[in-house]
Amino acid sequence: MPQLRIALAQLNNHVGDISANADLVVEWCRRADEAGADLVLLPEMVLTGYPVEDLALRQSFVAASRLSVERLASRLEAAGLGDLTAVVGYLDRTDETHSLKSGAAKPQNKAAVLHKGTVVCSYAKHHLPNYGVFDEYRYFRPGNELHVVRVRGVDVGVVICEDLWQDGGPVAAAGEAGVGLLAVVNASPYERNKDDFRGELVARRAREAGATLAYVNLVGGQDELVFDGDSIISDSRGTIIARGPQFAEDLLVADLELPAGLEVPPGSDGTGPSGMIISHHVLSTTAAPERAPIEPKVTERLSDLGEVYAALVLGLGDYCRKNGIQRVYLGLSGGIDSTLTAAIACDAIGADNVYGLSNPSAYSSEHSKSDAAELAERTGLHFSTVPIAPIVDAFHQGLDIDGIAAENLQARIRGVIWMAESNQHGPSIVLACGNKSELAVGYSTIYGDAVGGYAPLKDVSKTYVWKLAAWRNEEAVRRGETPPIPENTISKEPSAELRPGQKDTDSLPPYEILDAILDDYVEGDKGRADLVAQGFDPDLVDRVMRMVDRAEYKRRQYPPGTKISFKAFGRDRRLPITNGWREGR
Amino acid sequence: MPQLRIALAQLNNHVGDISANADLVVEWCRRADEAGADLVLLPEMVLTGYPVEDLALRQSFVAASRLSVERLASRLEAAGLGDLTAVVGYLDRTDETHSLKSGAAKPQNKAAVLHKGTVVCSYAKHHLPNYGVFDEYRYFRPGNELHVVRVRGVDVGVVICEDLWQDGGPVAAAGEAGVGLLAVVNASPYERNKDDFRGELVARRAREAGATLAYVNLVGGQDELVFDGDSIISDSRGTIIARGPQFAEDLLVADLELPAGLEVPPGSDGTGPSGMIISHHVLSTTAAPERAPIEPKVTERLSDLGEVYAALVLGLGDYCRKNGIQRVYLGLSGGIDSTLTAAIACDAIGADNVYGLSNPSAYSSEHSKSDAAELAERTGLHFSTVPIAPIVDAFHQGLDIDGIAAENLQARIRGVIWMAESNQHGPSIVLACGNKSELAVGYSTIYGDAVGGYAPLKDVSKTYVWKLAAWRNEEAVRRGETPPIPENTISKEPSAELRPGQKDTDSLPPYEILDAILDDYVEGDKGRADLVAQGFDPDLVDRVMRMVDRAEYKRRQYPPGTKISFKAFGRDRRLPITNGWREGR
Repeated sequence: MPQLRIALAQLNNHVGDISANADLVVEWCRRADEAGADLVLLPEMVLTGYPVEDLALRQSFVAASRLSVERLASRLEAAGLGDLTAVVGYLDRTDETHSLKSGAAKPQNKAAVLHKGTVVCSYAKHHLPNYGVFDEYRYFRPGNELHVVRVRGVDVGVVICEDLWQDGGPVAAAGEAGVGLLAVVNASPYERNKDDFRGELVARRAREAGATLAYVNLVGGQDELVFDGDSIISDSRGTIIARGPQFAEDLLVADLELPAGLEVPPGSDGTGPSGMIISHHVLSTTAAPERAPIEPKVTERLSDLGEVYAALVLGLGDYCRKNGIQRVYLGLSGGIDSTLTAAIACDAIGADNVYGLSNPSAYSSEHSKSDAAELAERTGLHFSTVPIAPIVDAFHQGLDIDGIAAENLQARIRGVIWMAESNQHGPSIVLACGNKSELAVGYSTIYGDAVGGYAPLKDVSKTYVWKLAAWRNEEAVRRGETPPIPENTISKEPSAELRPGQKDTDSLPPYEILDAILDDYVEGDKGRADLVAQGFDPDLVDRVMRMVDRAEYKRRQYPPGTKISFKAFGRDRRLPITNGWREGR
Repeated sequence: MPQLRIALAQLNNHVGDISANADLVVEWCRRADEAGADLVLLPEMVLTGYPVEDLALRQSFVAASRLSVERLASRLEAAGLGDLTAVVGYLDRTDETHSLKSGAAKPQNKAAVLHKGTVVCSYAKHHLPNYGVFDEYRYFRPGNELHVVRVRGVDVGVVICEDLWQDGGPVAAAGEAGVGLLAVVNASPYERNKDDFRGELVARRAREAGATLAYVNLVGGQDELVFDGDSIISDSRGTIIARGPQFAEDLLVADLELPAGLEVPPGSDGTGPSGMIISHHVLSTTAAPERAPIEPKVTERLSDLGEVYAALVLGLGDYCRKNGIQRVYLGLSGGIDSTLTAAIACDAIGADNVYGLSNPSAYSSEHSKSDAAELAERTGLHFSTVPIAPIVDAFHQGLDIDGIAAENLQARIRGVIWMAESNQHGPSIVLACGNKSELAVGYSTIYGDAVGGYAPLKDVSKTYVWKLAAWRNEEAVRRGETPPIPENTISKEPSAELRPGQKDTDSLPPYEILDAILDDYVEGDKGRADLVAQGFDPDLVDRVMRMVDRAEYKRRQYPPGTKISFKAFGRDRRLPITNGWREGR
């Protein structure tokens, strides 16, 4: 059986920056070549970045991507990398015109096979996802042709991401064509425990296709998405033989013993029962040179809490780095949300770039000031205090307000102070410290604590905030470092401290109950009857559902934040603002 | 030829409020019956409202809609309206299960035909739009069966909205089936001059199908969309014989002379060349009773400026009414944007519910105060003044800031004051007064002038703001009323007045040039090379493109506002926040 050395380039690119991404591809191809690889796989849409949104509809952007893949082929050849076969995801378009209103060519999500200075063939994604964060029917036209390239005598089929998740189509066609290797290029965003499903899927599809399967995924944060890497190689029996790290760049290299392609391969007549057209391309049939074998690595998985924490750190860090943001400002109340946010920020961009502001009012407790100061001491972040009482007084001179309006005023004065510091000392942003539970029920002050350029905990429920805080401290102990989070911050009862003696439980059910309801209503999309049948108090269910349905307006104006669940607020779950739906009432 | 009396119910419903919408349907069916109609058409998804967003994915919501259409049939029969044939849009689902991950039934966008207490048949939309504001592939599974119902001996084919815009499919099938009448139920959102395209399309499809075509559309505001009504009947030669008003409810009634359905209608074997299955249902074959003929009306179109103004008034008014908002607060600077916003608000919910706040600073000109006061006097809105200088001073005691940070501070103090007043005197919202040109280039202060629950001018360019202001004053003169907008507000040079002598042109090109570039870049999606070829200064093009590409973050957090163009900011045009695309540089 011929030996094929494959490299999976699990890299972090920059959406829209086609020329920088092309440089990255060349760099990683060089690394693959230095590792002796015959074939290197780069992720889906590596040249443009995956979540390009409506840039995909700009003709000039599509033209730039199309041109860059051709230039890349020449550039690799000129750099002495022409013998390497590279599979590169990019944005392209159809050539024909269509009967749609615009009459224009339609964008396609493609993967080009580059070899010896030319684009040998280019595969257009067949199965387009259009759920959750995916809108591919908005952008792309599906393809219907599977390309099989013969590399070192092995037949390699190339498909893209969702093609693997759906039954039928290209994976079935690859099976019909009897490929020895199925190469899957991906931009698969992180969700909690998705690596478990992903590993099982890769193994199952490898068995179904009767072929070794190589799955390469992007890594890095982009707006609300974070790609977790986790590239995988499974043999045809479904045994995972190599696996890359989570949330870190890596070149995963493996030697594969694969069957030789037949003289006349199946599907050479161009059609298969799957309905896909099958095209064959012979790139190289010579055996690989003698070389020292490489022991493939299978990277250990992170713990459940560890992987969420890593996602939050990478999501925030890349948001800052890719947007040219050098510093972050945030209000430190001594509470668990702002404290965990600060710890994440210190891990993401370094404590020296994190500025904590304490803005005590007449209602602030002693511990709110001392716990914040202790956090600063433990982590080394910058810490300063601007009391708000004189400013509150100045507003009250001109305004006749009380109750909630006066409570919100305090939160908004703090927001104005954070923004003023951030604007004065930019390039920087304010971090909003709200968690998913608060966001769900609208328990926040718009233009107050909701102020910010990024909200790291936007998709983290309150009860999970506590778990992550405890995990981060334990992790510090494991590493022999000072735990960043003061014990009192974890143990004390939550309060907004906007009036004397205020507690979160004045307005909300206990967080264990609230989060249990939210988990079923938001993540599980269960209806009122299901929730009541599960034993929740019907009045409480009504109250929580009403709060969630009415908070859509606030959620729309909340800053972006790292998505860690299937139903993050934002495009994953979008309600009408004007919403007359009152289930069961 | 049999005579058929048809009624088109151009009504304003409430998204999500299924039971209130069912009541509305009964009420409009009664009105149709009282007008002697044989057939009444109600809009697409009239029972649920059209833009239900992810409510379409809630099983309990789909179940409620499905149940409500069955109940509606019985209820109409019980109310003595069973002889009337009603076509009612609603949300339903497939019965079979699918191979998708969830395995659940998939929602469908359907129109039921109700007669004598039963749901005779139900058509599932075939062509699903998935561009601009439409995401129907996210929600719906397309149908493939055209239903033809015989009413008073006439064969009537039923299709839904996008089916009319796309070639092939159901309209072609209706032609094959030789229907006498093509009934099209719609939820077609307003865009500038869309009524022109719509009228032409209806006439063209009537000719193509060789049938009379009746097109009913929704009316009313829903979040950022406004539906403009404009229901139309065209005869088979493409002559428009009846047309409803724009932006107002109406029951459009017409007597139609239509060919009788054949004994064995074409397509009775169940299939046509279009690939659609054709099903026939006979409801009534008796001739209509003798009745006095009705003269159909063709409502005059509004002027270009008049229709945009009407859209903005209805969009804001319905946002307030449907969300239970009684009052609006807004900052009045004496400038054209806040003044036009105030005029729209007075027209939308009455001057007595509009509260203008003047918040002069040390840099405010005399005319900024006097022009605002004059606006209040002309319109009768509430007007009060809260100077911000003492509050600015209080912030500066605690903060060491200058430059842009100090300018933004003033805008944010105003935002805090407006929100405090609104929170104190709710249910109310603040109106953000920014226009599309400012929003495009990010010329606004986040948490300052961008504060608000709704932004009426969000999709109106600055140069169009001036045109609308002049039009509104001329309209007042035509009606013999006081023009609301002070002359000096229209004629003076724009300034944010955040530092001494500041003018908008310090930061931006003149608005005529800026709007011309934005029109090509944003609405026309032209690239840098196109813009330069058109004669714009290349450096200016680069500067404007960079400003637009970098302002996505601010735009995402801007309040919702009435959409009037194809490329409104929001879901119609969505860029990555982290965006490395620098075209041509």
